[in-house]
Amino acid sequence: MLVVMAKNATNEQIAGVQDAVRAAGFTPRPIPGGERVAIGILHNQGPVDPSLFSSLPGVSHTIPVTKPFKLVSREFKHEDTVVDVSGVPVGNGHFTLIAGPCAVESEKQCLAIARAVKAAGAGIFRGGAFKPRTSPYSFQGLGEEGLKILAKVRGETGMPVVTEALDTAVFDLVEAYADMVQIGARNMQNFSLLRRAGQSRKPILLKRGMSSTIEEWLMAAEYILEGGNTAVVLCERGLRTFAMHSRNTLDLSAVPVVQKESHLPVIADPSHAAGVAAQVPPLARASAAIGVHGLMIEVHDHPEKALSDGGQSLLPGQFAALANQMRAIHELLDRQGAETGAQ
Amino acid sequence: MLVVMAKNATNEQIAGVQDAVRAAGFTPRPIPGGERVAIGILHNQGPVDPSLFSSLPGVSHTIPVTKPFKLVSREFKHEDTVVDVSGVPVGNGHFTLIAGPCAVESEKQCLAIARAVKAAGAGIFRGGAFKPRTSPYSFQGLGEEGLKILAKVRGETGMPVVTEALDTAVFDLVEAYADMVQIGARNMQNFSLLRRAGQSRKPILLKRGMSSTIEEWLMAAEYILEGGNTAVVLCERGLRTFAMHSRNTLDLSAVPVVQKESHLPVIADPSHAAGVAAQVPPLARASAAIGVHGLMIEVHDHPEKALSDGGQSLLPGQFAALANQMRAIHELLDRQGAETGAQ
Amino acid sequence: MLVVMAKNATNEQIAGVQDAVRAAGFTPRPIPGGERVAIGILHNQGPVDPSLFSSLPGVSHTIPVTKPFKLVSREFKHEDTVVDVSGVPVGNGHFTLIAGPCAVESEKQCLAIARAVKAAGAGIFRGGAFKPRTSPYSFQGLGEEGLKILAKVRGETGMPVVTEALDTAVFDLVEAYADMVQIGARNMQNFSLLRRAGQSRKPILLKRGMSSTIEEWLMAAEYILEGGNTAVVLCERGLRTFAMHSRNTLDLSAVPVVQKESHLPVIADPSHAAGVAAQVPPLARASAAIGVHGLMIEVHDHPEKALSDGGQSLLPGQFAALANQMRAIHELLDRQGAETGAQ
Amino acid sequence: MLVVMAKNATNEQIAGVQDAVRAAGFTPRPIPGGERVAIGILHNQGPVDPSLFSSLPGVSHTIPVTKPFKLVSREFKHEDTVVDVSGVPVGNGHFTLIAGPCAVESEKQCLAIARAVKAAGAGIFRGGAFKPRTSPYSFQGLGEEGLKILAKVRGETGMPVVTEALDTAVFDLVEAYADMVQIGARNMQNFSLLRRAGQSRKPILLKRGMSSTIEEWLMAAEYILEGGNTAVVLCERGLRTFAMHSRNTLDLSAVPVVQKESHLPVIADPSHAAGVAAQVPPLARASAAIGVHGLMIEVHDHPEKALSDGGQSLLPGQFAALANQMRAIHELLDRQGAETGAQ
Repeated sequence: MLVVMAKNATNEQIAGVQDAVRAAGFTPRPIPGGERVAIGILHNQGPVDPSLFSSLPGVSHTIPVTKPFKLVSREFKHEDTVVDVSGVPVGNGHFTLIAGPCAVESEKQCLAIARAVKAAGAGIFRGGAFKPRTSPYSFQGLGEEGLKILAKVRGETGMPVVTEALDTAVFDLVEAYADMVQIGARNMQNFSLLRRAGQSRKPILLKRGMSSTIEEWLMAAEYILEGGNTAVVLCERGLRTFAMHSRNTLDLSAVPVVQKESHLPVIADPSHAAGVAAQVPPLARASAAIGVHGLMIEVHDHPEKALSDGGQSLLPGQFAALANQMRAIHELLDRQGAETGAQ
Repeated sequence: MLVVMAKNATNEQIAGVQDAVRAAGFTPRPIPGGERVAIGILHNQGPVDPSLFSSLPGVSHTIPVTKPFKLVSREFKHEDTVVDVSGVPVGNGHFTLIAGPCAVESEKQCLAIARAVKAAGAGIFRGGAFKPRTSPYSFQGLGEEGLKILAKVRGETGMPVVTEALDTAVFDLVEAYADMVQIGARNMQNFSLLRRAGQSRKPILLKRGMSSTIEEWLMAAEYILEGGNTAVVLCERGLRTFAMHSRNTLDLSAVPVVQKESHLPVIADPSHAAGVAAQVPPLARASAAIGVHGLMIEVHDHPEKALSDGGQSLLPGQFAALANQMRAIHELLDRQGAETGAQ
Repeated sequence: MLVVMAKNATNEQIAGVQDAVRAAGFTPRPIPGGERVAIGILHNQGPVDPSLFSSLPGVSHTIPVTKPFKLVSREFKHEDTVVDVSGVPVGNGHFTLIAGPCAVESEKQCLAIARAVKAAGAGIFRGGAFKPRTSPYSFQGLGEEGLKILAKVRGETGMPVVTEALDTAVFDLVEAYADMVQIGARNMQNFSLLRRAGQSRKPILLKRGMSSTIEEWLMAAEYILEGGNTAVVLCERGLRTFAMHSRNTLDLSAVPVVQKESHLPVIADPSHAAGVAAQVPPLARASAAIGVHGLMIEVHDHPEKALSDGGQSLLPGQFAALANQMRAIHELLDRQGAETGAQ
Repeated sequence: MLVVMAKNATNEQIAGVQDAVRAAGFTPRPIPGGERVAIGILHNQGPVDPSLFSSLPGVSHTIPVTKPFKLVSREFKHEDTVVDVSGVPVGNGHFTLIAGPCAVESEKQCLAIARAVKAAGAGIFRGGAFKPRTSPYSFQGLGEEGLKILAKVRGETGMPVVTEALDTAVFDLVEAYADMVQIGARNMQNFSLLRRAGQSRKPILLKRGMSSTIEEWLMAAEYILEGGNTAVVLCERGLRTFAMHSRNTLDLSAVPVVQKESHLPVIADPSHAAGVAAQVPPLARASAAIGVHGLMIEVHDHPEKALSDGGQSLLPGQFAALANQMRAIHELLDRQGAETGAQ
């Protein structure tokens, strides 16, 4: 349930409602809005009786919440969330490109790619320092050395960086170096990692698990928001289906559904979904047209020598051409939306 | 195998190669090209020895075909096929909208919708006269009466019409009335129906089965081409997956793969994939951006009273706004492709 | 709805209820039971008002039917249906083995295999005369010649035969030769074929489509029963999933669910599900243990020379050993069920 | 590659081969066998040249390993592994039942259930102390208090206990109390947790992820064996598919494939696969018949009051009847296998 305060409610009245929520055995969570405050009620089992709160001083009205997710839902917060990644906004009207190699391989490699993608309009640099690998015998990433390279890239180019934290053990380290921490698809229901992310002050990029429903994905985000971190960007990266022409089946239909249910930004990762470079540009254009708030795309200057996932990486020139197309599609729809009022 | 004739090969030489193919126990199939003729070899078991044909008079060279599909493959025919639907082209540079109600309900209904979608830029009218229904107790369509209504709509509006033939028994009837005959997703591997379509002189709209691989889909088209009908338009309409927020998961990644493997036009049907109207516009925009040659979209003037699938139908006004967006995206990408030479 | 007549209801009273059902605009369908007759109401849209019929003479009570399928449901008919295939029973306590080659290749081949599987305890012989093939260039079966061979096998061995009818065009022919007509997985929603099967007096073997829900499968059977043919045997043959170690994923969980929802017998086809011979015996044993009413298994005396699906065929000796195991499992569970009263 | 030593190879010769493997830049891993030692070569990139080792003193021959997994493969170790869970064997000829409630709720509850399942023949007790939950607002388990209850149950009944470790942070705690540590389906590719399990001296129960291929599952086990812990039991628990009549689709076809590829024991968990109690006994019987080395089944004395997954729990009496059936099937097949030499 959401207890909506009157516009002129005082701080004492807001505190009083929170006390009443605690007294009833629940957890209050104030949700600041543009003009007024609402107080979400968490940790209830089953429906809450509105009469407990609706006549308290300063209360305007109560709103029942019908979804299992709460803090991530539009019912709790109507306006689109904009996540600030060290100055680069993700969400609402913005269209943010995240680009870089699958794995950090060397300073030289990263700097060359970072400069190229920045010139092409990317706002955030990506690169894996800790890689989740199906085989224990595969290259597992450079670890902290990779994080240091990312920090250097940020220093040289001014681009914030995002990289994956594979587990709670390395979260502190990743958080110390990165501007945004990625939780990968295989870890979408690693609840310990989600709780740790909830305690972070860094924005989180939460990938959808490849056999996860939208509800499970939003519930995973709920773990992070419940811990106190509201800066979450969702990332669709493909489902595991019987179709084998693509590594996974990019589920673009999830984007409008997530945008209806949640206020969190949602981006797409066509590189991991496709698994082959030739499919990335068309899927990226489709993602832009469906209205994602951004894309994450793998770019490598020598894909044939990449230590990981080279086959799905674009060359810097291909990325630049694609970035132009995606931006043009985004602007076109933005303009049309403004003209017709339609979305 | 493909036996490519020299540019100046004579008719006698072409006939001679065909005789040699028959003498070897195979079936020759001449494929007319812009500047020269090629002769496809069908019905071989396993690889064919090129030396049988490469030194015959008028032969330029032979090309091994590595795919199980032949007549539908780019290896057999490099240029994009343009399918002519009673004057409306589908394929190559064209962007064709097919719109109309799920089921033909009455002349009045169809005429009203047809005029609206034509004004919005649709080139072909759709409407089901024979409906495949999971339950024997559901509305099965108006049958021949529905076909007559479609013919009347064509007469009044000048729009060619497409409608589904559920089986070989009604194919003659459908073929007599319609400009294009649809084979539905459930019938994608109804091989008798595919063979019947192969004998038709009307263009065929072949939907992808909801658990079909791309290879199976192209092999289904191969049945039609093998029968002699080369006017086939493929239609992606969603896969059955575990994801239940959408009726099916529209597999847009199939579009670039099909376009690489085959010369046939490919369109998308977001209405049946989504199953809910709110998801149709974003999926349609994404389809336009990924480069489909057209879309098929359900439109109804009173969706709440529709006898079939009203919940996924757009209102005429919504369709008109969407058609503008899709065309704008198509033109944008066309222009960019022309400028950069990139696809 | 089901209108249950009193035990001593007269024929006039039964006819009177049917008249009343017709007068209300619905279709009555008498369902003979052990001790009393019930009259099912078909072709209603939405719920039927029980007061229309509950006070008619001879009526005991009415039962609302909550499922979309009716004639196939346990609500309409509580007792297990036993399907009689030319003297061989399928369903209820019986455990029936159907065996034979994927495709009929020659009289000699079929007779040799038929004698072997009969000696091993198979009750029904299978063999395809018309084969559904993904490619138009693959072996399509011997056609009517294959049906004649099957008839000869029946004459020589006394075993009834089952074979597939690919379409309505060949249904008459197949029906004339075979004791049981198979509708394949790809045709499960070929509604014309289902309607034709409904008019047949021969039992039908209805395979589950590889991406069909149980409800869709039962609705397909409903088409057949609605047409007047109540002799339907259901056959689970695997789902299309992402798992590629098996051709399809045999969904044994469907068996108890179908047995709860429907009175029709249900068997399993592990050969087509697995696609490799080594997986057939374990899956067949599992099927016996889950309580199927029978199995259909491919057997070939020279699998390496088979014209179709040799890789999934057992040798006659392997089938004989497996048949013993399956029967032993069936008898064991039968005995235990009898002892404990548990299922 | 596997370097197989001669039967009479000396320890010096074995050490010499290991030195040579290290000198070539790889990792040697001795695999003790019944009559001779083999030395596996790990951490190679691509194929290894056999001539490097085949002529060293004491070497019998080399075997190329064609699978991405090594230590878990039958190529590396031919004989079935038997995992010892505090005296209770799992694997090879044994048939081990693991039973207990989904979540540990109280000492009284656990003791009552443990006594009942032990009397019915269960060898190992299960109960969750740390529960992975989709929602942060759901009951998360009793934590260490639950582990203490499990230890008490073991003290009172003599049954070893298995319980899940959700993350590396609680692994030490779980390992200290439990006889076997479970890694859940959502954590199958939590590589940090797999590495931690590899350092444990306790046996590990590794569930298959619900969208994992068999290769990914075996590679997850490879992480554990590579770390030095060879006591791994695999557990099939159902795939996520479009079929919604069961919570997941139990993939029994995986069992014979895993048994062919790997020497590790494999069991089934029909309770989590089904999600409804009525489907558990038939799926459990099918699992026994397909040849699993054991089953894990949820049992609760008051399912309607269970804090987690009550709807899929059997009553103790139902479990006892089922245990009899499963054992009878296992013994029947064991006997038949012995008689015919067939599996």
